[in-house]
This record gives sequence, C-alpha cells and structure tokens, in this order.
Amino acid sequence: LTSRLPAVGTTVFTRMSVLAAQANAVNLGQGFPDFSCERSLLQAVNDAMQADFNQYPMMTGAPVLRHAIVDKIAAIYGHQYDVNTDITVTAGATEALTTAILCCVHPGDEVIVIEPSYDSYVPAITLAGGVPVLVPMQAGADGYSVPWSEVAAAVNGNTRLIVINSPHNPTGSVLRAADLDALADIVRGTDVLILSDEVYEHMVYDRQRHESVCRHPELAARAFVVSSFGKTYHVTGWKIGYVAAPAALSAEFRKVHQYNVFSVNTPMQHGIASYMSDPKPYLDLPAFYQRKRDLFRNGLKGSRFELLPADGTYFQCVRYDKISTQTEAQFAEWLTTEIKVAAIPVSAFYQQGKESGIVRFCFAKKDETLALALERLGKV
Amino acid sequence: LTSRLPAVGTTVFTRMSVLAAQANAVNLGQGFPDFSCERSLLQAVNDAMQADFNQYPMMTGAPVLRHAIVDKIAAIYGHQYDVNTDITVTAGATEALTTAILCCVHPGDEVIVIEPSYDSYVPAITLAGGVPVLVPMQAGADGYSVPWSEVAAAVNGNTRLIVINSPHNPTGSVLRAADLDALADIVRGTDVLILSDEVYEHMVYDRQRHESVCRHPELAARAFVVSSFGKTYHVTGWKIGYVAAPAALSAEFRKVHQYNVFSVNTPMQHGIASYMSDPKPYLDLPAFYQRKRDLFRNGLKGSRFELLPADGTYFQCVRYDKISTQTEAQFAEWLTTEIKVAAIPVSAFYQQGKESGIVRFCFAKKDETLALALERLGKV
Ligand SMILES: CSCCC(=O)C(=O)O
Ligand SMILES: CSCCC(=O)C(=O)O
Repeated sequence: LTSRLPAVGTTVFTRMSVLAAQANAVNLGQGFPDFSCERSLLQAVNDAMQADFNQYPMMTGAPVLRHAIVDKIAAIYGHQYDVNTDITVTAGATEALTTAILCCVHPGDEVIVIEPSYDSYVPAITLAGGVPVLVPMQAGADGYSVPWSEVAAAVNGNTRLIVINSPHNPTGSVLRAADLDALADIVRGTDVLILSDEVYEHMVYDRQRHESVCRHPELAARAFVVSSFGKTYHVTGWKIGYVAAPAALSAEFRKVHQYNVFSVNTPMQHGIASYMSDPKPYLDLPAFYQRKRDLFRNGLKGSRFELLPADGTYFQCVRYDKISTQTEAQFAEWLTTEIKVAAIPVSAFYQQGKESGIVRFCFAKKDETLALALERLGKV
Repeated sequence: LTSRLPAVGTTVFTRMSVLAAQANAVNLGQGFPDFSCERSLLQAVNDAMQADFNQYPMMTGAPVLRHAIVDKIAAIYGHQYDVNTDITVTAGATEALTTAILCCVHPGDEVIVIEPSYDSYVPAITLAGGVPVLVPMQAGADGYSVPWSEVAAAVNGNTRLIVINSPHNPTGSVLRAADLDALADIVRGTDVLILSDEVYEHMVYDRQRHESVCRHPELAARAFVVSSFGKTYHVTGWKIGYVAAPAALSAEFRKVHQYNVFSVNTPMQHGIASYMSDPKPYLDLPAFYQRKRDLFRNGLKGSRFELLPADGTYFQCVRYDKISTQTEAQFAEWLTTEIKVAAIPVSAFYQQGKESGIVRFCFAKKDETLALALERLGKV
C-alpha cells in the first residue's frame, strides 16, 4: 500500500498530550479547555435526544442551526448569508477546511499557506493533489504579521486558493481591516478563492474587534469562512463547525461534504441551535479569556520566559532563549517531562520545521491549573 | 470555480425525503427508522456529557469504544483485531468509506464497484482521482448475486481496490461463504485491497448468518471493514461508525482521517461504548426486523407489486411492471405524490441509471406506518 500522505505522522497535539499524560504534567499543549461547558448546553442536547431528534438531519445542516448561524453572522459582522444556499454544518472545523480544499483544488493547483500554520492545511492540499506554496509570517516587535507583498508575489495563474487564519494559531496574532484590504487588492481581478479559518473568532482581546472576512463584502464574495462551536462553547470533542460561503461556492462544497460525511450529528445540532438563542456566551468570551490570558502573562512576568504579544486565540507564545539552546521539540519535551508543564513547539507549524526558539502554551484552563503551571514554570 | 465532482447532484435520498414531506406521503424512501431508539442509550450519552466527556477524544476513537468494538467482532465473527492499531472510530460509515478510498486510491488507480451500489462510492473514487470500474450484479429468480467471473475479468495491474457490500443496499441480497471464497481466489497473489461495507451486518434474516469479511482471515488481512452504529442502534443521525483493518491499512487510513475530521463526537462515543456492554440490542435485531419485513411482504402479497427476495438490510425491492411502464424515477415520484408512499428508484444506484422496473421501500418503520403504507399501496 503506497501512502497518499507519506509525510504524515501523528499530530504534535496527540503526541504531546500522550507525553503529558505519561509524565503526569499539566497539559498546556493541545488546545482544549479543562473546565466544563455550561450545563444548559448539555441540557439542550439531551432535550433534543429525548424529543427524538436522532435520525438523519438535512445534509446541509438542521435548518434551526443554519438560521441561528445566519442570524449570528448578520448581528455581529453585518453580512447577510442565505440560510438555504450559503451555510453548511460540518463535522468540526477540520472537516470544513478539508472539504473546502477538496472541493476547489484540482491536481496541480497552487494553494498559498501562510506559515506558521495549523497542521491540517497542507495534508489536505496534498490529498487534493494541490501544491502548497508557503509564505512565512514576519516576526516583529509587536508580534507576527502577514507580509502581503510576498503573498502578492506568490500569486500566479495556477493559484487557486489562499488560506488565512485569524485569530491565528499558534501566534495569537489578529488581522486588521488593512490586512483584509491588502488581500482584496491581491485577489481583485483574479479567480483566486479565500479559505478563512476563523475558529477563534470570539477570542480577540483588548477591545479590538475580530476582522472577519464576513465584514468585507468583496472578500466574502469569494470566501469559505470556517468556524467551530467546539472552540466557542468549550466542547472541543463535539466536532460541530460550519462553513459560510456564497451559493456557488457552497454548492461545490456540499457536493464533497455530501459524500465525505453526508451530514452531522442531529441532537448536537439542535442543542447548539437552541443554546445560540442567547448571545451572552459568545459575547462574554473575550472578557472571559482575556482574564485568563492576563493571569497567565502576569504569572510569567518574573520568569525567564519572554512573552510574545497575544491578541487573540487561547494561546500564548513564549521565547525561551534565555533558558535553553535546545530545539523547540526538545525544549517542549523537557518542559513536559522535567518541569511537568506540556507545551507545543511552534516548529511543528512549519513544513520545514523552522526553529524560532518559541513554544506555545494554551491558557484555556481552570485558574488553579494555570496557577500550578505558573508555579512550575517560575522555577525554570 | 471548476467542479471537482461535476456529475454530482443532491442525493436521491434527500430529494425523495423533500418530495415526501411536500406531498405529505408516508416516507419509505430514505433509509432511517421512524421509531425511537432505546432510552437507555440516550441516558448513556447524557451521562457521558454530564461526566464531562466533552473535549477531544483520541484521534483513533475513545479507547472504551475501540475495546467494545474489538470484543464484539471477536465474539460474533471470531476475528481478533488489535484495539490500538486496527480500529478507528469514524464520523459515520460514509466518512469511513470515503476516507478508506482517499487513503489508498492514487490518481489513475482502478476501483471495482459492483452495481447497483450505494451512491457515495463512485464520487469518493472520483475525488481520489481513481477510475471506477463497474460490474453489474446478476438478477436471477432468487435475487441478485455477484458474477465473480466478471469481477475476475475486471481485475488488472491497475486495480487497487474492490468495494463489496453485504447485506446489500438496495437489493437486500447477502453474500455467502462461497462468495467470499470466490473473492479470495481473485485477489490472492495480487495487491488488490478490499473495502467491505457491512453497515447492515445485524440485519440478516431466515436464520442465515452474516458472512463478514472478518470471518475470512485471508480477506480480512487486506480489508477495510466498515460498520455503523446509526443503523444498528436506530440513531442514523448520530453519525458514528468505524473501520476495522489490519495495522498497516489502518495506519494509512488514520493519516487521512486525522486531517479529514481529526476525531469523532466524544460523549456519543462514550455513550455507545457503555450501551454496547449488553449484546442484546444487536442480537435481537434480526428477529426485530424480520418481523417487520414479513409484515410488509405479507401486506403486499395481494397487490400488483412483485416482491423480490429480501435476505438482509431494512429494504424491500419490488417490481412494478404489472402496474406501469414509467421509468423508476417517474414511478417513484408518482407513488410519492399520488399514492402518498415514497420509494427510491433503484436506477439511482446505477451510474448509467439502468432501468430494471424496480423500486425500493424501507421497512424500518413503526407497524402503524407500515400498515398505512400497505393500505395505500394495496389500492395501486
Ligand atoms: C485537533 S487537536 C489540536 C487542537 C488545536 O487546535 C491546537 O492545539 O492547535
Ligand atoms: C445517507 S442518506 C441514505 C440512507 C441510506 O443509506 C439509504 O437510504 O440507502
């Protein structure tokens, strides 16, 4: 059996979680909350099960959930999607990303990926027979930014898709309105599509706002916009997300989705739809996570870790060059096994494993988990 | 946007369900039960949610569920899979089928599909860049059978995979031990793999047994075996299935699965695992559905529909040439809108839309639903 994905191993998230469990370390590696979601969300799912919402939903998603998504996007970003043609509920954001890539990338097409990048983009492009074209982010004093001139230089007649991600995993950087304008300038007059991974859309701090592609009509007209209920509602294991895209793009997306997973868990869809009628949970999210971010940052201030900016997501990147000259993978392993705090090497988000002397911590944890981790990290 | 799947429309199941709802017809089209699952299964899922099993499970599946699957396969089919390396929990059987195809079919590889066939196989092969090679089943007095000599003739150096499906959707035919032996003779000495869709494994009637590929060590050594909890436990909307395959095949399967959906709903996996500790629900299933099959068949005996054999699945095919000369699609539409009983044209399971004058009914329905349908069909 010749591999279709010869370069693929087990994800760094799984490997570090296994190592953390073996080492009995505090797991600040893989991104997931260690606290519970709201009980009313569980109740809503249980109500849906008891009400016999247990058979196939519509392939495109339960209408109640598609309505709730359209209303939320209109309320927050002012963009009106069509509930019937533009929204597809997916088996998590990963399925949304991979299905979007599979539906529009033909063998030989180029796809621009900005590095560091979430680890599923490139294998999905490879599976589609596409060619990933990697553009590195620029690291400056105020954090990471996208060098749009280099993105522009990478676009040619074979370019099919540009993948963007804001708030950005792993760097926590966020795109500004000017970034979206720069991207619009690049794609104007071409038939290049946009895949916008916005799974951390509700985690933007310091009173900034999330510059969703949905706010930018010119980009939204050629974009697949992906989000995730797992991230927003503290249920990463539920694997429910969605893609919003204009009808013509959604039609192609659905052809692949229909034969990839057909449809998505019915009672979870109904439960989430009912829970979404109250906007408070996602409106409160920035303040909720900003508090945790600040708690974690303040706790590291006296340490030998150098804090990088963290404008969004639930990740904090730190530079460790005052502590060690190890590679990021070695250092993350040492932190996990010796200091008993697991982290993720940022090199894992680069195809060539580029070393920047930076590891990523997840602060989506109980205050006492963060306190324990800080106590241990303070001793380094 | 050039389509990756230009031939794909909305599935016949969705179209007939929409038409049935519009026409206020009894829906015997799309295959799903109209009765509830056992309350203890819902309770088990709710218990898992309340116990905070809501974050990412292992990419391969929750260990408790993989254990339960391995034990079930060993108990029923006598084949011992390895819980760590051989079982992957999937986002329904559709994801399992598509991921299996994507992980082993390279552009240009040929895949043998026996027609009529479930409608996801061919689009998944197309998406992988593979070439579907269609072998029609033989229709005889005792129903449909696979012409193994024609399958043998279709195998050549480019053949990568043979897809089989027993119990068979839509015909309800089941493979016998001699069929598996014939298949083993064909693939012996080649590197052709087997993809065995066994989602109706617990629906085989008249005291026959299901000849799972798991019973046949020579085939199991080169097979992806797919099943579905949605079918077995009356929860088609939960979208949890699995693939069992030897370690080398599972390793490639997991590379694609990891970047297709990453993992599968956590509380549902835990709930199903706990519910599986009692084998009664699936051991009782043949008798449960055989009663419904017989009720439906007996009800049609005085009618002008000609009953085809129905050895497995929850489908009953009927020939309607004494009633109409319409195409199957026209006849199914007429049944739905005029007689108010929805059916599926079997032509939809052929790539070239081959007409056999046969439509498919689903009898996974409450007795009163079947009675109402029979009353209406009796008048035709
Ligand atoms: C799907 S496991 C990875 C979770 C995550 O998004 C991350 O840790 O970056
Ligand atoms: C995924 S919808 C189709 C259900 C089914 O398996 C069938 O009706 O054949």
